[in-house]
Amino acid sequence: MVTNTRIHVQTKGDCELVDITRQVAQRVEESAIKDGTVTLFIAGSTAGLSTIEFERGLLSDFQSMWERTVPRGIPYRHDAAWGDGNGHAHVRASLLGPSLVVPFMNKRLTLGTWQQIVLVDFDNRPRSREIVLQIMGE
Amino acid sequence: MVTNTRIHVQTKGDCELVDITRQVAQRVEESAIKDGTVTLFIAGSTAGLSTIEFERGLLSDFQSMWERTVPRGIPYRHDAAWGDGNGHAHVRASLLGPSLVVPFMNKRLTLGTWQQIVLVDFDNRPRSREIVLQIMGE
Amino acid sequence: MVTNTRIHVQTKGDCELVDITRQVAQRVEESAIKDGTVTLFIAGSTAGLSTIEFERGLLSDFQSMWERTVPRGIPYRHDAAWGDGNGHAHVRASLLGPSLVVPFMNKRLTLGTWQQIVLVDFDNRPRSREIVLQIMGE
Repeated sequence: MVTNTRIHVQTKGDCELVDITRQVAQRVEESAIKDGTVTLFIAGSTAGLSTIEFERGLLSDFQSMWERTVPRGIPYRHDAAWGDGNGHAHVRASLLGPSLVVPFMNKRLTLGTWQQIVLVDFDNRPRSREIVLQIMGE
Repeated sequence: MVTNTRIHVQTKGDCELVDITRQVAQRVEESAIKDGTVTLFIAGSTAGLSTIEFERGLLSDFQSMWERTVPRGIPYRHDAAWGDGNGHAHVRASLLGPSLVVPFMNKRLTLGTWQQIVLVDFDNRPRSREIVLQIMGE
Repeated sequence: MVTNTRIHVQTKGDCELVDITRQVAQRVEESAIKDGTVTLFIAGSTAGLSTIEFERGLLSDFQSMWERTVPRGIPYRHDAAWGDGNGHAHVRASLLGPSLVVPFMNKRLTLGTWQQIVLVDFDNRPRSREIVLQIMGE
């Protein structure tokens, strides 16, 4: 059985992390499926999905890692050609990846206690984001 | 329902990005499945899969990121032991990941308008690559 | 059809890579499913999953990459706040990702010959890890 649904998130951009665990868990709860996977996919090329312990210190540590490895302040050809100023956001998103697959059993996501599902919006401005949730199983 | 298929891609290696969106969309179109996920998997340990806005500037920016974070010109124990000269390619592939899961609804991949599915071939020579596509749904 | 199972792994932490290919292949073999995907998910926020050619040189090269890109010896706010000393482990795990999806056909994982499934334990101490395996297909 397959159920398609979507989550809408308003972000501030600039590497903001948004905890979407509750919404994902709720959609799984509401579905007719007891055991299966929820596939999350972010349409768009300047945001990604992962899990993290959603704690203020770590959010900052995660953001600092991106500033070190894919910095904002270096030249990007994308910016030179298109003037968007978000070349770093595209590169970060491609590295992190647009999809995440989380199994659930008996309606419960198999997350750890201190593990939350996050959308990371790398873009350089606030965005209205839509995350596809596909719930599959039986 | 499950459909297994494969895509063949000839690459130049050296961090070439190949846009495979059209082939993936076509295989989904040809399948008997209306709603579901397509799981892409690259067999091999020197290539990976992701999505990107397939634009010349960004391809170059993405490649520059790999040169900075997992450079070619530093010593790798893999190269010292095996003489392949592709230690960097293995490490990059493990970081990017071999699988990508893309949901589709009513036969349409849920990609953004400027978001393409890419194979990234990190190897240091041209390769003939085979990507597994497994389409699952109903 | 959906089958839920788990693999238990005892790790040494400190970026140890554990080859779990044999266990995954065995669980697929034991299931009643011939064609489908196995979704692996690590509950916890200081470990991740990927594939690699499981060869001593590369394991070391992969670990060196993490020391360069997300080093141990720099300040993490997580450590300042909680004193765990594993801020780097959390950031690494979020970048690598907690899930991996591997298709199988006719009971065989579609891995390359020199491509193994690995758990990477980034934590700063030995851990007892549980990996969720969800096998879905027909």
